[in-house]
Amino acid sequence: MTQQYGTVHVIKLGGRIIEDNAALEGVLDAVAGLNEAAILVHGGGDEASAVARMLGIEPVMVDGRRVTDAAMLDVAVMVYAGRVGKRLVAALAARGVRALGLTGADGDVLRARRRPVGTVDYGFVGDVIGVNTDLLGALLREGLLPVLAPLTHDGSGQLLNTNADTIAAEVCVALAATYDVHAYFCLDRPGVCLDAERPASVLPVIDTRRYAELVASGAISGGMLPKLRNAFAAQAAGARRVLLLRADALPAALAGASCVCTELRS
Amino acid sequence: MTQQYGTVHVIKLGGRIIEDNAALEGVLDAVAGLNEAAILVHGGGDEASAVARMLGIEPVMVDGRRVTDAAMLDVAVMVYAGRVGKRLVAALAARGVRALGLTGADGDVLRARRRPVGTVDYGFVGDVIGVNTDLLGALLREGLLPVLAPLTHDGSGQLLNTNADTIAAEVCVALAATYDVHAYFCLDRPGVCLDAERPASVLPVIDTRRYAELVASGAISGGMLPKLRNAFAAQAAGARRVLLLRADALPAALAGASCVCTELRS
Repeated sequence: MTQQYGTVHVIKLGGRIIEDNAALEGVLDAVAGLNEAAILVHGGGDEASAVARMLGIEPVMVDGRRVTDAAMLDVAVMVYAGRVGKRLVAALAARGVRALGLTGADGDVLRARRRPVGTVDYGFVGDVIGVNTDLLGALLREGLLPVLAPLTHDGSGQLLNTNADTIAAEVCVALAATYDVHAYFCLDRPGVCLDAERPASVLPVIDTRRYAELVASGAISGGMLPKLRNAFAAQAAGARRVLLLRADALPAALAGASCVCTELRS
Repeated sequence: MTQQYGTVHVIKLGGRIIEDNAALEGVLDAVAGLNEAAILVHGGGDEASAVARMLGIEPVMVDGRRVTDAAMLDVAVMVYAGRVGKRLVAALAARGVRALGLTGADGDVLRARRRPVGTVDYGFVGDVIGVNTDLLGALLREGLLPVLAPLTHDGSGQLLNTNADTIAAEVCVALAATYDVHAYFCLDRPGVCLDAERPASVLPVIDTRRYAELVASGAISGGMLPKLRNAFAAQAAGARRVLLLRADALPAALAGASCVCTELRS
């Protein structure tokens, strides 16, 4: 594969990492120390739920996924694009990194289709249908670091809630044709663990065959299923390196040093 | 004066315009119809106050200016950078305009110094000390439309609340050396009125001498004073055209047609 534009590190940070100041500082220092391009994708679901409750809105989850009515979307936009995204941007600016806090509507960078109502109506939730690689490329060439909130838009003025892992994977897939993509999916455990209760059971490597076996045996289940599906999508599209890891391992991973993590193979 | 980069329209929209859907649609249609570069600067103070009250935070104003403690700053970031800014960005995207919703921390576009404590401690409030014209120029050349929230940063990770009129004026001043700047300060009245209760008393033109007379006589007072100071700063820096007007006159003004407004002269 021809890599025309060099390396880009796509880093997905979960909401819990963002609330853990020590881990976050380490991650942001490592990002600031990179000599290559990077894109951050962040969550913030717990914070959105907390703000919603303060506003008298009770968060509704179905099968671990958020139901986003108009009031909840409003909160999501305030918390993801405002509080979480701009806090990251300001913290990066303090490290000399010129970051831009974006939703999918900004520059039309992530276009989505509102999810059709099936057995569940998830409300204002979007499935990504397009990544504006021209814009991302232009921003990266300007030396800017896009910080993507888990929000997309439908092109008709409607913002939509979209899973941050999915956004990170879609960005990796779209950029893999022209960039040497390194993807980092941060988890609250050190990687794919054979026993979720035992961090030491982390697998250093997982390939598609082992993945299928572990799904069949039930060793991979719940929230890890969509995370791995997204990470394998990035890997299948040609990402050079795809790691699942805890945020405290990210500085070593970004520096190319050895660290505790799970690397995906085909 | 040599204008190297063509025309840029700097448009300051107040919070009340953003809540008035009909006026806002007209403004956004007009912005989308421009064949020249534009920068929007928006407020949102009333919305921030409303959200603050819903969260149990009572807004504090001294001499018409907001006191911004940590909790209020948090609300300001959520409302300005999140709800208001990204709603504008999504509405522009629906019109084919690639807008970016930015605070001063994004790309280090607006650097400020926290206001020293005098007789009043305004809290997390910033006075602009630098406009990143290189970044604004790069974004405009990419065909992007910056949407600036009334938030700056101190370069050390702290976001700061900053008046939107001041930001619009500072951007005009910084860009006037290289761009043909047209500035539009939207008000809730049709321009500078000799009698605030009579819209028909609007002055079509005001120069610095008349301005000084009207300030001395008390005909210009209260919130109009800083607005005019900001607008005259843009004019003095070499902006080609500076208008004070109501949002419903903005489409005609942007199209170069005649409209009810007050134009500033030296």
